[in-house]
This record gives sequence, C-alpha cells and structure tokens, in this order.
Amino acid sequence: MSHYNNNLDKNNANYVPLTPITFLERTKDIYPNYEAIIYKNRTYTWREVYDRSIRFASSLEKNGIKPGDTVSIMAANTPELFEAHYSVPMTGAVLNTINTRLDTKTVAYILKHADTKALIVDRQFSPVVKKALDDLGRKILIIDIIDKQVDLKDTEKIGDFEYEDFLKKGDINYVWKRPKDEWQAISLNYTSGTTGNPKGVVYHHRGSYLMATGSAVAWNMPNRLNFLYTVPMFHCNGWCYPWTLAMLHARVICIRNIRAKEIFDLIDQHKITHFGGAPIILNMLASAPKDEQKELKHKVYVLTAAAPPPSIIFKKMKKLGFEVMHVYGLTETYGHILQCAWNNEWENLKEDEKADISARQGVRYPNTEDVQVMDPENMKKVPRDGKTIGEIMIRGNVVMKGYFKDKEATEKSMKGGWFHSGDLAVMHPDGYIQIKDRSKDIIISGGENISSIEIENTIAKHPSVSLAAVVAKPDEKWGETPCAFVELAPKQKSTEEEIIKFCRETLAGFKIPKKIVFGELPKTSTGKIKKFELRKKAKDIN
Amino acid sequence: MSHYNNNLDKNNANYVPLTPITFLERTKDIYPNYEAIIYKNRTYTWREVYDRSIRFASSLEKNGIKPGDTVSIMAANTPELFEAHYSVPMTGAVLNTINTRLDTKTVAYILKHADTKALIVDRQFSPVVKKALDDLGRKILIIDIIDKQVDLKDTEKIGDFEYEDFLKKGDINYVWKRPKDEWQAISLNYTSGTTGNPKGVVYHHRGSYLMATGSAVAWNMPNRLNFLYTVPMFHCNGWCYPWTLAMLHARVICIRNIRAKEIFDLIDQHKITHFGGAPIILNMLASAPKDEQKELKHKVYVLTAAAPPPSIIFKKMKKLGFEVMHVYGLTETYGHILQCAWNNEWENLKEDEKADISARQGVRYPNTEDVQVMDPENMKKVPRDGKTIGEIMIRGNVVMKGYFKDKEATEKSMKGGWFHSGDLAVMHPDGYIQIKDRSKDIIISGGENISSIEIENTIAKHPSVSLAAVVAKPDEKWGETPCAFVELAPKQKSTEEEIIKFCRETLAGFKIPKKIVFGELPKTSTGKIKKFELRKKAKDIN
Repeated sequence: MSHYNNNLDKNNANYVPLTPITFLERTKDIYPNYEAIIYKNRTYTWREVYDRSIRFASSLEKNGIKPGDTVSIMAANTPELFEAHYSVPMTGAVLNTINTRLDTKTVAYILKHADTKALIVDRQFSPVVKKALDDLGRKILIIDIIDKQVDLKDTEKIGDFEYEDFLKKGDINYVWKRPKDEWQAISLNYTSGTTGNPKGVVYHHRGSYLMATGSAVAWNMPNRLNFLYTVPMFHCNGWCYPWTLAMLHARVICIRNIRAKEIFDLIDQHKITHFGGAPIILNMLASAPKDEQKELKHKVYVLTAAAPPPSIIFKKMKKLGFEVMHVYGLTETYGHILQCAWNNEWENLKEDEKADISARQGVRYPNTEDVQVMDPENMKKVPRDGKTIGEIMIRGNVVMKGYFKDKEATEKSMKGGWFHSGDLAVMHPDGYIQIKDRSKDIIISGGENISSIEIENTIAKHPSVSLAAVVAKPDEKWGETPCAFVELAPKQKSTEEEIIKFCRETLAGFKIPKKIVFGELPKTSTGKIKKFELRKKAKDIN
Repeated sequence: MSHYNNNLDKNNANYVPLTPITFLERTKDIYPNYEAIIYKNRTYTWREVYDRSIRFASSLEKNGIKPGDTVSIMAANTPELFEAHYSVPMTGAVLNTINTRLDTKTVAYILKHADTKALIVDRQFSPVVKKALDDLGRKILIIDIIDKQVDLKDTEKIGDFEYEDFLKKGDINYVWKRPKDEWQAISLNYTSGTTGNPKGVVYHHRGSYLMATGSAVAWNMPNRLNFLYTVPMFHCNGWCYPWTLAMLHARVICIRNIRAKEIFDLIDQHKITHFGGAPIILNMLASAPKDEQKELKHKVYVLTAAAPPPSIIFKKMKKLGFEVMHVYGLTETYGHILQCAWNNEWENLKEDEKADISARQGVRYPNTEDVQVMDPENMKKVPRDGKTIGEIMIRGNVVMKGYFKDKEATEKSMKGGWFHSGDLAVMHPDGYIQIKDRSKDIIISGGENISSIEIENTIAKHPSVSLAAVVAKPDEKWGETPCAFVELAPKQKSTEEEIIKFCRETLAGFKIPKKIVFGELPKTSTGKIKKFELRKKAKDIN
C-alpha cells in the first residue's frame, strides 16, 4: 500500500481552480502602467483594463447578473470586447460573443437559446439587434457601446445604459468570483454552421487557462509582444488570446475594419510583431496595391487558420517578409490544436516544396494530448502514408465541455472518447496531418474520392487566380465531378480552357474540373467560403 | 437554474489528467532528430531521450516496480538524471532524487523513510551508498551509472545492473502509464533541513505541468533555448526544468562539476542562452581570474535563487554582460514562485539603486495564485510599507501535496489555507516582496528586530569581501548582538575595524556587528550557509 495517497489531500493552500482571470490580475499587479490596449486615440494601461473590468463586473452584478447566467456581446474588436472576456466571468457568468455579421433571425435564435440575461452591443449593430430583440419577446438588460470612430447616423440608442456610464456605476473594490470548480463554464461560442441552427460550444476556465499557456509555447510568443488584433474576438474568443495576451503583458492594438493599408500602417506605427488572419486576409495583404503596402522594418510573425490555405499564399507572404505559420483548430477546441511547426531539416528544400510543407495542418499543440487520423467506423488509426483518408480525432483539455442544451449532439461529437472534427485528412510519415476535405466536401467521382482542396490548391497557383473553391457537381455518368469557382486577382483575366489546361499539368485526369465558373465567391461571416451555395449553383449549371 | 451544469460532463475526449510526460512525447514526435542532451562527448536527440526513458521504464516494471513505488536516484547532472524524470513516472512510480553531498546516515534515513524499492546511483557515490544500504538492512534493486568522465578507482560495483544494460533489456514498445488523476505523486524531494531529519516533499503531476508552463512565461524562455544545467537536478527536480526544457525542445547542456572556467567555455562553445545558479556560483564567475573568464558573444540570461543575494552580485554580473533575474522559492513550491520582474520605469535609476531593486524577491509567478506577507498570528496582511515584517505565505497549484508520512508537519505548514514559508519579509509599496530573514535567523537586540540579511548585504559591498554571514550572538546586555563571518575574495585582506567602519557608513548603530570573524564559511550540500554552525561558533567567541 503506497503512502502517497495518505494525508496528502487538496486544501486551500495547494489547490486553486485554474482560471485565466488570474493572468490579468497578476499583470495588473506587476506592470500596472504598461500600455495594454491601444485603439485609435484610446489607450488603456493594464491597471485600467483591470479596473474597468472590475467596475463593469460589479455593475453587472448590481443589475442582477448571477453566476451561471449568460451575458452576450455583439461588438467589433474594440477594448470593450477585450474587457468583456474578464468582466463577465469575474461575476461567475458566461460570456457569449456573437458574430457581428449575423442576420436578425440567427441573432434572435442565439439570444433565445443562450438564455441571455444581458446584452452588450456596439451601436453599429443596433439595427439588427433591435429586430432580434423584437423576435425574442422578453426584456433583457442592454448596454450600448458607442464607438466614436463609427458613423452612427443610421443607428439608434437601444440600451438601458451606455457602456462607459454602466462601468462608472461599478464598485472598484468589487471582489471577483473565482470559479469553485475549474470545469465551470467561462464562455459560449456559437458555431457559424453552414447549414441548420448554430450549436453553442461551451468552454470552461480550465481549458481557457491551458489554451493561454499552450498557445504561447506553440507560437513561441515572447513577453511584451506587440499584437495586432485582426482576428475577430467573437470567433473562438479570438483564439483565446485576450487571456494569452494578458499573461504575456502584451501591447494589444485593436483594429475595427480589416483593410490592407491600415494593417500595413499599424504594423509600422506600433512595431507589430504578431498577428493572425484567415488566408483570405493574407491574400488581401499580398495582393494589395504597392502604394498600400509598407516595407517591413522588423520580423512579423503571422498565424493563419480557418480554411486550408493554398500553398501559394505562403510563398507570397514570405516574399513580403512575413513569417507565416499555419495552424488548425475548431470552435470546439478553443481555437488551434494543430500547428505546422517548422523543422530545420527542411531548410534545403526548394521554395515550392517548402510552401507545400507549410500548407499542412501539422502536429499537436503542447496543450493538446492527442490528435489522430482515424477511420470513424472502427476508430482505427489510418497508416502514416500521406494517402489514406480518415477523420481528424482530438483528445485533450482544450476540447469543449460540450454543446449547450444539446445532449445528443454532444454525445455524438465525442463518441468513443474522441472529439470528431468532421475534417477528412491524411497522416504523413513524419506525423504531420494534412486536411483533404470536410466530410461533406469530398467529391466522389467514379468511386474515387477526390479532395476538393487539392484541386483548389492547384488552381490557386495560377498567376491570375486569387481564390478558388471546388465542389461536387452531380453527374449521370460519374456520380459526381469537380466544379471550380474562381475569383481572379485584380485586373487579371483568364478563361475556362486556360485553367483546365493549367490543372492538367499536375492533376490526375479524373480530378480535373469539368467546369470553371468565374466571379466573386460567397463567404460566411467568418470568411469561410459558403460551399453549400456553390453546390446549389453547380447543380443548376449546364 | 443554469444549464451549464447539465450534460456537459468530463469524458475521455475533453478531460485528460495533466502530466509533464506529454511534453517529452510531443517534442519527440515533432523534433525527433534535434539535439536534446549534450554531455561531454555524448549527445542524445529527443527521440533517443524518449526511447531511452521508455526502455528504462519498461525495465523497471519488469523488475517489479509498480505505480506508487518510490525509485530513488543519487546522481550528478548527467543525462541519466534527466531521463529519470521521465522513466520513473512513466511506470506510475515516484522519483526521489537524493542530494549527492549527503552523508551516509542521512542517505540511509531517506531510503528508509521513502520506502525506496529501487536505487539508481552514480558510481562516484557508491562508497556512501554502500554504507547506507548496510544501515537500511533490506535488499533493494540497485542500478549503477558508470560515468566514464569520472575517476572510479576508489569505487566498486554495488549494482545489480549497469544503467545502460538495464535500459537495453527494456521494451521500446512499452506504453507508459498516464496518471489516472493529476493529483498523483510524481516526485519526492527531501529538504536539506539545517536541523533535524529532512522532510519528504511530495510533488504531483498537475503541479509539475503547471510549473513548466509558468516558468517559461516567467523567465520569457523561448523555444529551442540553449540551457546549461548548472543547477543540481536533485534540488527541487532541478527547478522542474527537465519538464520545462522538453516542452520547449531546448538544447540541454549537462555539467558535472561547477568550475568557472568550464562554465565560461561551455557558454562560448554551445552558445548558452540561459542558466541558473545560487549567488555563490555567480560570485565564483564574477570573481574568477581573467584567464578563466571568456567574453560573452551573445546575451546570456541567468536566474539566481536559493539565498537572498547581496545586491553587489547583480552589479558584478551585469558588468560581465549577464542579465540576471532574482527568483525565490522553496522545495515545497516546486522551485520558484516569486521573480524580481524588471519594470521599465526603473531604467533611469542609478546603478546602485537598480542593483538594490534587483535584490528583492519580487512578485508571483504566473502559475502562483497568491503570495502575501502576513502576520502568522492573525493571518492579516502586513501594510505595503517596505518595513513591517511578516511571513511569506503562498497559495496555488505549485504548492506541494504535503510532507510524506508526516501528517502533523503537513497540517502545520498549510494552516489557515496558506503555505507558511518560514521566511520573514516586507511588502514594498509596489507589491514587491523582500526577504528580511528566516524566522530563526532574525536577530533580536535590545527588543529591536535586526535583519541578518541587511547586514550581510552591506558587508558584501566591501570590495575585499566575497561572502558574509551574520548570526545572533548571545549578549548579556542586549539579549543578542550581530556577529559577522566573512569570507574574503582571493588575494584580498581586511580587518575587523575596517569592516565595522564600512558598516557604520550606512547601517544604524544597533545593527553594526560587534564581532567580525574571517575565514571560509561552512555550507550545506545545496550551497546554503550553515548558520546553525555559525551560531554555535558565535556563542563561544569572546
């Protein structure tokens, strides 16, 4: 009988439930006067961010918010949204960030499903919210954010309070509520869901804490980095970085509207060292007119995620001097859990090979216990051959608690003790994972599985092409055939024949699109291409 | 009723007990061929470190080691000791590192108290161990480490196996045992205890994991740093860095004997960026003859801990180009939990003021939830005045499980929900903690508390002095008076009168030592000054 289990129990001295709120508290204690958040002409120190969050939390509680309540927020990447990541959980309540591009119906659905007790809303979005509140049919506490940078002439006051007034009513000596259990919910994130109602992904304090520590190591983020907040904080809590950045006492530069010129200007002005963005953003930067670009005077590290990026993007960004790392994750995993970690052994490869390698989703984050590619039928790992397709399965402390009020979907998603990502991928011999498709995006032609992504990557390498999306088109003979939708780069021209010929140079015959359609691609609120719309279109094309 | 507690439970997909073993597994998967450990002419890659640990674990299990057993190791900072931090917990057993400078009696006590089932021992220490085993009076599994760098002519084989042979018998496909509960013990560290029997401090997997992530942020350690392992790994598991360094896929350079010349040579040869050492080591480096020193070609970051360092050390090291951060911790807290984090607002202070500020113990680590200075009688915080003395009290997940088989001491040490450090300190207005003394080292003269450290720091500033220790000397009139023991720097001379005069320039009259004694200071196996011996001496001096 081992003595290690005797009289060595948890007590208040040696066990404290993990919560990322402590990162802000510590940074406020150590670096109170350091710049924390900069947004246009507004600058807050870490003490101010803490004090404002404490006051706001106190005011929420005074207005009836209790532990376990949901507080929603629909806001752009302004200081208020950063602060809400602290103020709301400080009361024991759960933060629900709402995508600012959603329509009235979906917003109403979320407010209802989330049991929202209070809503913080940027005035710019009040028209949508006002209608959603009518749909909701019950009175909730509304707090208005007034951003003086925004033209508000078509908006109206819908709040009971303005953010700054509400905050001022709070008590600066409010004692924030530590979670009694680190499994306690901290946030609720609705998936963008290309079909059906969005699902509410619940994060807990433990996972948010571990996401912060793991992300810092994965991306080698130093203390006091200059971070440009291009990634929407409403998306996976902005990759959980409001917590990571406080831990690292970073300088956080907010940006409301994503424009190439403004990004280049801010990088220059604030010596930005790190930012993130979907491939579509990187594409925008790389393709921006020369007079909007600014030469980089220092190293800038970029994370890209959200869609499998064409490898050409890595080449283009590298040419501008950016160091891009490709990462992969889902709302259900607090953000990223795979990273295409660079290995020095690849230094001598050709530039094209390097770009191809960088486009892989990669290997697990330090906070992620296991990621495998498995056959979902028998839960067996696929061979490491870079060919056999299986589903990405994830296990670890940065997998969600589950879907809010949806027992069935929760159980289905974590069947067999693994989270089922729904993404189809291969495992390369070196252990790096590469996505081939979403389960529903795979094209089955004459019994062969075709990865739409492989074709997309090929087309994207064509010098005239900016973006490509490939979907299945029903076909009498083959069952399905690939159909490509192509967005050309500014001032570029091309033809169907030219693109098909270009594909033929590298792709197997059965993978070559039978049809090429030019035009702007439809995108979701988070920048993902709406393949379901393209599938509908493809059906109707002759 | 909140829905956040319904159907959102832990399962195998979203909850995995934390263990630092996963850091090695991940680094092996991603950077298998990167250099991991370098010791003289031996170099192991991360895959080799993993494989060797797995094999060793397998062999331990084949030889009867079970979860909850204790495996002890008495070794220098060689690759074997690093590997033991993985191989032993991989079997579910608990690693007990033994200080290599201990005497037979204490080693026997530890082996007995720890219920040691197996002992790994470097051949250099076999004479002491052999006698200790005779005392122990029961047969345990012994594995010999043969270090070819060491002259072994006065040693004999005492093991059942040699380390490398034992390892080779292990199965490379062994599946290591994840802890079922992150509260499970991972290591057992006996305090050096200046009086009485040493106490066995028990660490768990959770704390070791959080020590790794927190340490990296606290010291701003980047991925792939070049770390020189000067700190004994038998001490607080080498500050838990075997786990931190695997997480960061560092290059770890081992060093067996601490000599100034070898340290300077290794810094140069391996481009060392980080190392740690007690003030006594830094003093050795700073005072080394010019022909043993080498000019630094790059930035070298140094952590110092273990004893309150005289501020003059910071000045000396800075002059050589080292960037020193002062940290504080105890065996009971997995290593450091306070750091003297630098604040840019101090840039314009004078060099002396900067050095004084750097000598403070500082503010809490990111993984440490709360550290306060309190009156242990009523558990009230002392005012932040830099004057009122209280005891340092600690709370967080990096406080030990407790003392092994010592319920009473465990309960006493964590009374009132705080770990009682036994160190007396003040809290400065900026929230930085500064140690004034160990409870038992404070000198009470004429009813006034005198900090022995304040006097030591003063004397250490004298150009001829290398090291100073001040203890209480019984005194008929005053109760106690300060008595100073002084070690002079090489080739330096001084007199009692000169030192006393030097003290008078800055110290209050009642703090000036009544007696100065020159000579080498007695030190414990971890480099702490044996004040109890000095106290005895002081008593007998006229």
